Amino acid sequence: MAIESKHIAKRSENLSEWYTDVILQGELADYAPVRGCMVYREYGYAIWERIKTMLGRRIRETGAENVYYPLFIPRSLLLKEAQHVAGFSPQVAWVTIGGGEKLAEPLAVRPTSEVIIGTMWAKWIGSYRDLPVLQNQWVNVVRWEKATRPFLRTLEFLWQEGHTAHRTEEEALRETEQMLDVYREFAVEDLSMAVLAGVKSESERFAGAAETYAIEAMMPDGKALQSGTSHFLGQNFAKAFDIKFLDDDNTEKYVWTTSWGVSHRIIGGMIMLHGDDNGLIMPPQAAPVQAIITPILYDETKAETLAVAEKLVKLLSRGTAFGEPLRVRADLDEATSPGFKFGKWELKGVPVRLEIGPKDLAKSQVIAVTRDERSKHPLIFDLDAGTFEFEKLVELLAGVQKRLRERAASELSSRIFETANFEDFKDIVAGKGFAVAAWDGTTETELAVKEATSATVRVLKNEVTSGKLACIYSGRPARYVAYWGQSY
Amino acid sequence: MAIESKHIAKRSENLSEWYTDVILQGELADYAPVRGCMVYREYGYAIWERIKTMLGRRIRETGAENVYYPLFIPRSLLLKEAQHVAGFSPQVAWVTIGGGEKLAEPLAVRPTSEVIIGTMWAKWIGSYRDLPVLQNQWVNVVRWEKATRPFLRTLEFLWQEGHTAHRTEEEALRETEQMLDVYREFAVEDLSMAVLAGVKSESERFAGAAETYAIEAMMPDGKALQSGTSHFLGQNFAKAFDIKFLDDDNTEKYVWTTSWGVSHRIIGGMIMLHGDDNGLIMPPQAAPVQAIITPILYDETKAETLAVAEKLVKLLSRGTAFGEPLRVRADLDEATSPGFKFGKWELKGVPVRLEIGPKDLAKSQVIAVTRDERSKHPLIFDLDAGTFEFEKLVELLAGVQKRLRERAASELSSRIFETANFEDFKDIVAGKGFAVAAWDGTTETELAVKEATSATVRVLKNEVTSGKLACIYSGRPARYVAYWGQSY
Repeated sequence: MAIESKHIAKRSENLSEWYTDVILQGELADYAPVRGCMVYREYGYAIWERIKTMLGRRIRETGAENVYYPLFIPRSLLLKEAQHVAGFSPQVAWVTIGGGEKLAEPLAVRPTSEVIIGTMWAKWIGSYRDLPVLQNQWVNVVRWEKATRPFLRTLEFLWQEGHTAHRTEEEALRETEQMLDVYREFAVEDLSMAVLAGVKSESERFAGAAETYAIEAMMPDGKALQSGTSHFLGQNFAKAFDIKFLDDDNTEKYVWTTSWGVSHRIIGGMIMLHGDDNGLIMPPQAAPVQAIITPILYDETKAETLAVAEKLVKLLSRGTAFGEPLRVRADLDEATSPGFKFGKWELKGVPVRLEIGPKDLAKSQVIAVTRDERSKHPLIFDLDAGTFEFEKLVELLAGVQKRLRERAASELSSRIFETANFEDFKDIVAGKGFAVAAWDGTTETELAVKEATSATVRVLKNEVTSGKLACIYSGRPARYVAYWGQSY
Repeated sequence: MAIESKHIAKRSENLSEWYTDVILQGELADYAPVRGCMVYREYGYAIWERIKTMLGRRIRETGAENVYYPLFIPRSLLLKEAQHVAGFSPQVAWVTIGGGEKLAEPLAVRPTSEVIIGTMWAKWIGSYRDLPVLQNQWVNVVRWEKATRPFLRTLEFLWQEGHTAHRTEEEALRETEQMLDVYREFAVEDLSMAVLAGVKSESERFAGAAETYAIEAMMPDGKALQSGTSHFLGQNFAKAFDIKFLDDDNTEKYVWTTSWGVSHRIIGGMIMLHGDDNGLIMPPQAAPVQAIITPILYDETKAETLAVAEKLVKLLSRGTAFGEPLRVRADLDEATSPGFKFGKWELKGVPVRLEIGPKDLAKSQVIAVTRDERSKHPLIFDLDAGTFEFEKLVELLAGVQKRLRERAASELSSRIFETANFEDFKDIVAGKGFAVAAWDGTTETELAVKEATSATVRVLKNEVTSGKLACIYSGRPARYVAYWGQSY
């Protein structure tokens, strides 16, 4: 049966157009009638709900519980931490009128919630027995961005932000590193992505942080995508908001805090990483629909085929994959051709298609077709007995999940280039991938490199202890070897 | 073992103070450093998550899927539906500055999303084959309220708003009524509340609606609490936003739309309805913690008791109640007395406490104590065999759920008073409950009654067809018999 694809740009030729096409035509999202904002349609929001489920579970396992802090932050609170306000002020949306009156104090629409959370913690935390505080919230935030693209950069975006307070520096550092691990595992295991994980340079640090860790993915156009960050905030916010506790030695101490976040941006990364010229390829664990039943209808067998397809949805929904109920649907539209249906669900990236035509009906089978390899596998069912070859279907799903992960990992490896030559460096970061190169550790050099190549340090690889390496740009003794790249 | 309650106001003496006390001291929520806004703490947000789970399931069963529309609405869109803008304008928070610059067009922080949704539907809906559209979103909204109280009325609040578009008037009306039923069943079955359900008077209609339906609960102070609304919007928004479709008769028609919402306000209603002088009583289906294990510690048996309590949490979490895993925790704090623990978890309204002391340890039992009746029931366990008297525990939980529901129902019945005498009417609505009284159906009369008694029509009971009844206030022939009451 021919696949009739909608007219989308070829991913292999124009990644940027392809990206917009699959989002709009796959009905994940649309542009909102507000500059820089997007509307999540059903399929796109279902992906976000999958992320909430999977990452939410991992966050809960670290002991953090969900809370909700207000959307609005009075201007005076935002001013309390100097670096923080300097970093975020230019991006803030301000509410200045409410209830028909000019407000005495403008309210920021939260760009992030450290300051309002710090204010409450100062009130709640009194003793070492109140620590640690481990909180998380799934909310909308607003940052006034100039150039925007669905998922990747939007004025309003959905994210989770975790905030923790600890008794000691070591504990807070452990938390920061633990969350980096959680994000890395989530990206790799649940979304089949490949990422670098490490510490950021000073210039790329979160405003107000003592240290920022990040996971960075590599996109097919050779640009890096920051996909999650975990910040060690030291005592910066504790001091600005006076968050103190009485320790068991009877002295008052400031707490140590962290914050960490993953936004809907990671959906953009997942889309770009896994698609092909026919559309999206959803990793089965993240897929809102894991298997789509597509009946092939002929007049004589139409009624029976549709009835069987409906029953199969019910039967299959009782199965499980990756520890959750299978997510199965049937496309029972009688007005569209099988080829059109195949194209529609390939565009949406459903990992397995289950075809059922007259011959299959006679054999009590569906033909499972994997999205990535289009390999075909008959799966036998018995509706009366309520049986289905579930193990085979789950194996096919696990196969897609694994192949995407392996492909992403090998893609990433193939896009990491060590170099000690600045001409090579320029060539690498201009579309090839990450350059692994020595850096003297100064912001001055990093900015000069950015000026010359548009590339920055994405994460540090390691410290240089020997003293023999020279910085790729300044030639001075290197302090770090870093992963450099252009970024989204 | 004595119960040591925190010092909270007596519900029987001062409902209003008690309400604030249980919310603050039960650590459900706190006042935010922004006027009229609240912070959800872990326990309070867990209640909201329970509501999302339970009501979300009911909404999905009607066929609606989750989506997400932007927070900001350009001023020009809000102006398109005349009644809608008139109703909401005074309550809007306006963003006027973004990215350091004054905006050419102010952006409303959504007070509700009909207009931005209408804009997108006009783009997406083309044919009768695109209908119905059944969407829902769980979001934050902002309405500039003057007097605020946690959950009951806040500037920013959490809610779900459903929006649907239909081919025919009948179908849209059916949807409106179906959602009223969903809300009623949710309130009664899941939250053990008792509500009246019916049509609102014109003056209490949603701005832009052709008809508004609501569920109304009766609080212990004799005031009604509107706890959910379902609006039949006719073609008002379809015409304002030009949402048309080509029908199968090849003519262009406007769609018929509905919208419906339940907010965090229903948590306030549930709290007020079910508590007692010791604190909250959570209906088990809505309870974040259904059973709290409270070990009673003596020096000789402390280690063993704590170890057993921990194992019991794991064992019990494998059980189910109401079709979901049991939600069980243990209070292993060694520094607080059993009496303090009992008081703490009673204040939080946990439906069943499982006490385990030295004698229970010897008998391999816990003593289950119900929150509402404090009746005691030994439940036998065997940690080695992994067995527990789950059925008995589930029965106790179901008992609490049922008793709360029955108590709420009988409370509601006892607070409905028929009257044909305006002096009686005034007395009823001033703290007793709902007055069932005839009304001539005019807004003029309703406003005059409100002026005289602070009461309004909460919902209509029935139309008057005989022509023999006289309006309680004007004496003119009645058009309706209505439920009148003061309201939150």
